[in-house]
This record gives sequence, structure tokens and C-alpha cells, in this order.
Amino acid sequence: MQKFGFIGLGIMGSAMAKNLVMAGFDVTVWNRSPEKCDELVALGARQAATPREVVASAPLTFAMLADPAAAEEVCFGKNGVLEGIGDGRGYVDMSTVDPATSQRIGFAVAATGGRFLEAPVSGSKKPAEDGTLIILAAGDRTLYDEAMPGFEKMGKKVLHLGDVGRGAEMKLVVNMMMGGMMAIFCEGLALGGKAGLASDDILDVVAAGAMANPMFALKGKLMGEGNFAPAFPLKHMQKDLRLAVALGERVGQPLFAAATANELFKRASAAGFGAEDFSALFKTTAP
Amino acid sequence: MQKFGFIGLGIMGSAMAKNLVMAGFDVTVWNRSPEKCDELVALGARQAATPREVVASAPLTFAMLADPAAAEEVCFGKNGVLEGIGDGRGYVDMSTVDPATSQRIGFAVAATGGRFLEAPVSGSKKPAEDGTLIILAAGDRTLYDEAMPGFEKMGKKVLHLGDVGRGAEMKLVVNMMMGGMMAIFCEGLALGGKAGLASDDILDVVAAGAMANPMFALKGKLMGEGNFAPAFPLKHMQKDLRLAVALGERVGQPLFAAATANELFKRASAAGFGAEDFSALFKTTAP
Amino acid sequence: MQKFGFIGLGIMGSAMAKNLVMAGFDVTVWNRSPEKCDELVALGARQAATPREVVASAPLTFAMLADPAAAEEVCFGKNGVLEGIGDGRGYVDMSTVDPATSQRIGFAVAATGGRFLEAPVSGSKKPAEDGTLIILAAGDRTLYDEAMPGFEKMGKKVLHLGDVGRGAEMKLVVNMMMGGMMAIFCEGLALGGKAGLASDDILDVVAAGAMANPMFALKGKLMGEGNFAPAFPLKHMQKDLRLAVALGERVGQPLFAAATANELFKRASAAGFGAEDFSALFKTTAP
Amino acid sequence: MQKFGFIGLGIMGSAMAKNLVMAGFDVTVWNRSPEKCDELVALGARQAATPREVVASAPLTFAMLADPAAAEEVCFGKNGVLEGIGDGRGYVDMSTVDPATSQRIGFAVAATGGRFLEAPVSGSKKPAEDGTLIILAAGDRTLYDEAMPGFEKMGKKVLHLGDVGRGAEMKLVVNMMMGGMMAIFCEGLALGGKAGLASDDILDVVAAGAMANPMFALKGKLMGEGNFAPAFPLKHMQKDLRLAVALGERVGQPLFAAATANELFKRASAAGFGAEDFSALFKTTAP
Repeated sequence: MQKFGFIGLGIMGSAMAKNLVMAGFDVTVWNRSPEKCDELVALGARQAATPREVVASAPLTFAMLADPAAAEEVCFGKNGVLEGIGDGRGYVDMSTVDPATSQRIGFAVAATGGRFLEAPVSGSKKPAEDGTLIILAAGDRTLYDEAMPGFEKMGKKVLHLGDVGRGAEMKLVVNMMMGGMMAIFCEGLALGGKAGLASDDILDVVAAGAMANPMFALKGKLMGEGNFAPAFPLKHMQKDLRLAVALGERVGQPLFAAATANELFKRASAAGFGAEDFSALFKTTAP
Repeated sequence: MQKFGFIGLGIMGSAMAKNLVMAGFDVTVWNRSPEKCDELVALGARQAATPREVVASAPLTFAMLADPAAAEEVCFGKNGVLEGIGDGRGYVDMSTVDPATSQRIGFAVAATGGRFLEAPVSGSKKPAEDGTLIILAAGDRTLYDEAMPGFEKMGKKVLHLGDVGRGAEMKLVVNMMMGGMMAIFCEGLALGGKAGLASDDILDVVAAGAMANPMFALKGKLMGEGNFAPAFPLKHMQKDLRLAVALGERVGQPLFAAATANELFKRASAAGFGAEDFSALFKTTAP
Repeated sequence: MQKFGFIGLGIMGSAMAKNLVMAGFDVTVWNRSPEKCDELVALGARQAATPREVVASAPLTFAMLADPAAAEEVCFGKNGVLEGIGDGRGYVDMSTVDPATSQRIGFAVAATGGRFLEAPVSGSKKPAEDGTLIILAAGDRTLYDEAMPGFEKMGKKVLHLGDVGRGAEMKLVVNMMMGGMMAIFCEGLALGGKAGLASDDILDVVAAGAMANPMFALKGKLMGEGNFAPAFPLKHMQKDLRLAVALGERVGQPLFAAATANELFKRASAAGFGAEDFSALFKTTAP
Repeated sequence: MQKFGFIGLGIMGSAMAKNLVMAGFDVTVWNRSPEKCDELVALGARQAATPREVVASAPLTFAMLADPAAAEEVCFGKNGVLEGIGDGRGYVDMSTVDPATSQRIGFAVAATGGRFLEAPVSGSKKPAEDGTLIILAAGDRTLYDEAMPGFEKMGKKVLHLGDVGRGAEMKLVVNMMMGGMMAIFCEGLALGGKAGLASDDILDVVAAGAMANPMFALKGKLMGEGNFAPAFPLKHMQKDLRLAVALGERVGQPLFAAATANELFKRASAAGFGAEDFSALFKTTAP
């Protein structure tokens, strides 16, 4: 039975780790607030006291932290991953971080003699629970192969995109497109509303045509109900747009549509909607 | 057997009229270049010499012209629709025109004693051939009901949206969203390309997620093959974005994302790609 | 003593006509609301009953109407300019209209045998009173020379820019730059304010550097006092930006900054500030 | 005779230090490439071997480095400022850095017992030579007073803006406005050019009106001559716009016009004009 570590049991991490436990893997978990481990321990997982212990005991450890700061702390902090990794053991960081942070963590892990793979995911809570995430891996190819049995329980699609940084970049590219789509979607609904069109009619026409997509269908319905409970917080979408625009600057790609979407999301954040779902952009599109 | 007129046999109109003929309706056609009528006449349609004759002889006439100028000429010109319509006969203009032009035509037709319905469509050549257009009707409700047997042969979905102008406005709202989606799609592909991501990988990830839509899938594939043959000409998309931005001004709805997309399409038009498919936007996104 | 006609005695027109009267010219005036003529008649001007009468009696008539609709009405309407012009008499329309309207008026006047010059101005109420407007003439060169004695009393600078349409276009280009400057000025003040900088300090630094200009100095001061009384109404600035963006489309020049400024001004208009000075843009930049 | 240190003798620094030397101050200089000190030593300055030596020997040292990286290296590097400052000696960093870097340097200097003032400048090479810079100081008030005799020889205007960070922020606000002005200026010239207006006429009209400013006058002339030799490199303007947009995000101020200008400058940078004057933006506005 393959042995895995799993660091970080937030909304995404606990669902992903649960899929590994239920699949019968021998999983050792850690979370900053230890009580988050209880449910998985009851299901058969082991609990470690520190990230160091996890990576020292398992040949391959997955991590799912909330943001670059947490990912860095777990890696570089006291009793962190760097203190326990080495000897070819693997660290697969599935957190969404900017490409530079990912590369920093990757170099540090490799310097200990360990192996590193970044593997950010596309998808939110429900795909995490259902094991239908899209996994965007990049980095050590051998580690990718060894992680595959675990990936297959967490995701419906796994890609290897190249060197460390490529996974983080793919995540940004995809989230940038999502942000731009939400921006024009909100403007279309707002324009139609002011022109006297019923928003159900607009959603019907969109759903019947070449543009039809699950995001517009789901969000359109929730927006019509005034339901902006966060599946993907607006402030995180704006952060991803900022990172995408910065990536554009680094590689010499101007991004007029993305930069405009970034300011639109900033406006919504500044208006107080940062913790709501990113579809709350509608509230400042048509105030 | 219901008798219909059909004015305008361009790429869209000839396919739509053919569906009516093949369905067994008694169809009288007219086109500026008369030879365009030959195929349909061979299939059993009648040919009239002028728009006036068409609308004088059929209780209900559909029209499908290329742009507002053509739609106005056919209506107001010599031997045009206004000279032959009246007595409750119906004129159903399916051309894409701006709301003001549609209202102008509608008022003029109603002033003769005729009835008017605007019914622009969403969808291009293939849905026109397959009879799977989305029909966005607005105006005379009784005429809408009488047109339905014909609509059902031309489209897979028909909506009645309100007063004349609403159909044209819905078309603009939907096309505006399409233009914004293409803009961010091109920027995503361009950014990913410069960052070293394979465009097939980007398309795969998009196709697997909540953003997946037929337009991205089809256009992404064609763009990858360098195929920008026009299904929907770029200059028409830009025109629709201009009209959407103008509608926004009229109803007091600022449209930052749409206005940015409008300038992006203008840039591609100015670079000489106006007659190519609107996906040729990619050529100026990543020149 | 040279004889001039003067049609349109609004805020701008009455100040401009007054300069002609005070300079000793024989001036015949007309205004839709006749009582607006009283002050000038008291100063020695003659009053006509209709535009037709004015242009029939004076070898050269200036006009200063509020917008394209008024300019067209005065020209094409009953007892309008077209009915009285001809035989080489001159019509110098100083109204701000779009290039197409100007050309329409110009062709119509020339068709009567009259001569036409467009001559929109840059500057608002105070320069009109002080006779320091900038006059952007285009069209009939001989009429330009004959108008010069009048121009010299109304303006500090006069240019002949080419064929009819060029003056209107120059006006749009200049006002577009003004709108873009106001947009970034408001964003700078808003950003500085939120960052804790005193707006007087920002204005001081701007005034001391290469960017220093009378508009920023004056508007910055008034804005700091909360004074948005209209010198140049915001809705007119937005209209000019719309016309500039449209001109860009016609000549194949994408205008990202201008299009963004246009949406920013639309936002302020939609928020209810259209009748205030265009510096009221600040109110929606930092709400 | 007041004794000053001066670190960094690039284009700006050498001109500024020269003004101090010519004013009769006892100046000790340092530059990474020591030969840059030769001219000033010939004029009477002393030369130190390291930044540490400079700040250890002078009660107050000015610094003028090219960018945040250089400013940090001089401060934190081996034989750097931190090793020699203390005991109330002053460090006045006049480099343009982001607010966070300035605060980092400031805290570190204060931690040694030294005093810190940031004092970025507005103006480029010629004002540096002429001693007519605008100095945007923030930080230690007593150090500000002691630096004033030096400031008066380097600048025509000096402000104290508050705590460390405020000077850097003022610089960003002002440069952001400059970037937005250049963007709309280039679009105006490009639009006018395509519409058939002579660019000299456009510059004349601008110069005669409320928008008239030294930057448009000078750059307009040089642009007309095809002279884009760098007074302020385009890539630095773009960097400042990026920093301004980031500051906007931090303080909750959306910046649509600035974000658009940022992408326009990125486009020009990506096209290869980053090392030219920021007016080279015109080359990609009207390619």
C-alpha cells in the first residue's frame, strides 16, 4: 500500500486527502490547527506533529496550502519541510502560488536531495470532494509518475506541463480567462437589464449557443437569486488577475482585457465584496 | 400549405429559406442578384421581381439582409416592402440591425396597416443550414404566433422578448459577450504561448473545466491550425461591439470590458484582418 | 464698416457677438428666444426675425449653436439659412458638430451658391468673453479671409486646417486629449488621497514640473473647494469622447486610452453628474 | 562649511553632486565604477572606497541610485551604508524606489541609530544639471532641515510630505499622471494624423489652450523630428505605472486609465522601444 503524506487540510486539502484515505492509501496528515485532522484520523489516517515529520516519514508528500505565504512558511519555517525532506523523497505542492514562489520552494527542496513537483489544481470545493479536479503538474518527471496513483484519486485530468513554474503559469492563464469571462458576463447582464431584457432570457440565449458554459449557467442562476456565497472568493480572483498581468509584463505580452478585468475586480473588492464569490463583480457592474 | 415570402438569399438567408422550402411551405423568394434564387426555384420556390411583389402576395414574409443599410433599402427603397405591405400582412425582419433602425422599419410597416416583427438570430452558417438557429423575436405578438411554423424549421429555440428593439438589443448583448470572451481567450493563449505553455495543453485544461464552451473548443482548434476562414467576420463583430457600447451609453451602463474589446477588434481590423473570422483577433494579440 | 450676421446667442454666442458689436461692426443677430437679443440690440446690433433674414441681408454670417441638432435645424429648418443664403454670401458655422454634420451643412450651403466655412472653437465662457478663443477653421479659403476681421475680435489664434470636416476633427482631437488628461488627473488625485498625500501637495508638485498646465491648476483648485459648477458640462465632454472614438474607428486608429476615458465619463454621467463640470469625474473616481 | 556624502554618480547623481561641489560644500563621493568620480574629484570632492566609508565620515549623506535593487545593495550589501551609519548621522536616499523598499531601508537605518529621509525627485537630466529638480522628501524632520542647504542647490522646490513612503508615493502619483498624459497625447496625434491634420497644427492648438504644458511642447517637437533619444526611458515609465497600479490595489483605488496606460507602455516595451524615451510610445500607437 502506497504511503503518502498530506500537509494542509483546509476546504480543498481535507477533501483531497479524504479521497486518498478512502482509496486505501496509508496517509499521514498535518494541519496548523490539529483538530482539522480528526475526521481523517477517524477514517484511518495517521497524524504528525509537524511538516518535518510528515516529509521525513513518507516517500511522497502532497501539500495544499491557502496561499504563497502559507506555502513558504510550511516549507521554510521551523520544523518545516526543508528540515525533513531529502534522500530522494518527494514533495508535491498543489497550492496555488505565483511562479517565482514555486520555483523558490522547488530549488530549496532539490538542494536537500529531495525531489519537487508543483501541481496546482483547477476547480473548487465540489470537484475536490468528487475527485474531479484538473491537476496542472510541472517539475520532476519521476516524481510525477510516482504521484499518479494519488493524482488519479483526486482529479479527472492530469497534465505534465514542463519545468517548475509552468503549472503555476497555466493556473494563472486559466484563471485570467475566467476573470475576463466573468467581467463581460456581468456587463452583458447589466446592459441587458438596463435595456429591459429579462435576465432569464439572456441566460437562456447564452445557454443555447456556442458560448454556453457551466460557469455562466451556474453563476447566472445564483446571481439571479442574489446568492453570492463564495465558491471562489473575489479577492483571490483579483489576486490571480494581478499575477497574470505581472506574468504578461515578464514575458512581454500586453494584456488589455485582463488589465481592465483586474481593475473591475479591484473596484468590487474596494467596495467591500472581496470575501464574496467572484460573481459578486455584478454588484459593482450594475450598482 | 402556409405561404411565406423570403427576401434576401445571402449565406444565411439561402440556408434559412431552403429549410422552409424543404419543409413543404409555399415560398416566394427575392434577392438583389436574381441568380441566387435559382437553387431554391429548382427546389420548388416561386421567384418575385421585387420586394414589393413578395410582400404583396404572401401573408407573411421573412427577410434576411446583410446589414442595416440593406435592410433599410429593401424596406424604404423603390419597389420596396412599404409599397407592397398592408392589410395586416406580416413582415418579419431577421437581419441584424441596430435597435433604432429596427424601430424605424417597424413603425413604417405598421403605418401601412401591416404588422412587423423583428427576429434577429444567434448562430452562423452551419446552424442556419441545420435549422438550429436561436431566434430572438420582438414585436407583434400575433405575427409571432403565425411565424412560428416557419421559425420551427429555421431554429432550435425561439424567444419573444417584448417590443420591437428588444430582439436587436438581445443580439447585441449576446454578441458583446462573445466578443469579450474572444478577447480574453486570445490574451490567454498569447500569454501562455509566451510563457512556454503548449496551446493544446491550454485548450485541454479549458475544455475540462467550468469554462468549457463550444466556441473556445472549435475556434481554439482552428486557430491552432492557422485557419481563420470567416464564419463570423471580424469587422462585423467589431460593429456589434460598437453598437453594444452605444446601447450602454443610451441606457446609462458603462462597459469597460466591452469598450476595451471594441478597441482590440478595431486594432485587428485596422491591421487588415476585418474580413477574416473574428478569431483572427489572435493575430494582433500576439503579433 | 463690415456687416456681419450672428445666429445663436447662448453663453458662447452672446459673448462672441458682443465682441463684434463692441468692435464697431454692423451686426444683425437672431436667437430662438428673441429676448436674448436685447442686450446686443441695446449696444447697437440689429435684430432679425429668422435665420433666413440674417443670411439674406449680411454678406457673411457667423453661427454659434449648442449642438448638431440645433445647427441642423437652423440650417435646414423652415425660414432657415438655406432659404436665405446664396449668391456667394458666406455662412461660418462655429458650433461644435461632428464632421459628418458639418459636411452635410457645408454641401447644402454650397449647393445654393453660398460659401461655407466651419470654424469650431477651443475655449469656454471666459475666453469667449475675453476674445481669446482658438478658432479652428476649415473650408472655403476666400470666406476664411473675409471672416478674419471678425475672427480677430473673437479669438487669439486662428488656423485654417483644410477642407470642411477638418475643423470639427481638430476640435475632437483636442477635446479627446483634454478628456484623457482629466481622467488621469482624477485618478492621480484619488490615488494620492487614499495613500495619505495632501491634494494641495500633489497640485504643487504638478504645477512645478513639466506637466504643469492651466487646466490642472484651475480645476485642481476648484475641485479642492468642492466647486463643480459647469464651465464645460461633463455630458458634452463624454459626447466628444464618443465622437473621437468613432472618428478613430473611421480612420482605422484604435484608441485604448480614449475609449477608457469615455467609459469613465459615462459612469459619471450615469451617476447623475452630467450637467456638472467635466471635473466632476472626480466624484466617481473616488466615490 | 557643511560636509556631505554623495553615493551614486549616474546621469542624475553626478549632476546633483556637482551642484553641491560647485556651491562650496565639502563633498565625499562614491560610485560603483570609481572612474565616474574623477570629474568631481578634479573639482575638489573627496573620494571614498565604499559606501560604508562615506556615511561613517559625513554627518549627512545623499544617495542617488538607479533603481530599488541598487538602492538596496548600497544599503544592505557588504561595506554598505548600514555598516557605517549610526550615532544620529543622516542618510538621504533620493533614488526612485517603491514605497516598501524605501520603508525597509528607512527602518534598517533607524535601527542603527542613524536618521533616514527619503527624497525622490521629479525631473530628469536637465533639471538635475540646472539645479531645478522638485524634491519630494518624507521621513525624519530634523534631517530634512539639515539637508535643506543641499536641497536648495539641487532643486527649485522641496516638500516634506510625511512619513517615509510618502515621497515614493508622491513620485508614483506624479509619474502616473505623466504616463497617462503621454498615452492620450500619442493617441491624439495618431488620430489627427490619420484624419489628415498636420501634427504642427495639433501642437499649435494644444499650446494655445488650457492644456498647454512644457512636456507636450517639448516632446511634440522632438517626436515630430523623429527624435526619441531617452530623457526618461520608456521601460522606467512602465515600471512606475506598474508600481502606481500596485499602490492603487493596496489602498483600494481602482485605476482604469492608469492600468490602460500601463498596458500601452508594455506594448511599446515588448516591441523593443524600452530603452528609448517614453515618448516612443507613439511608435506603437501609430505603427
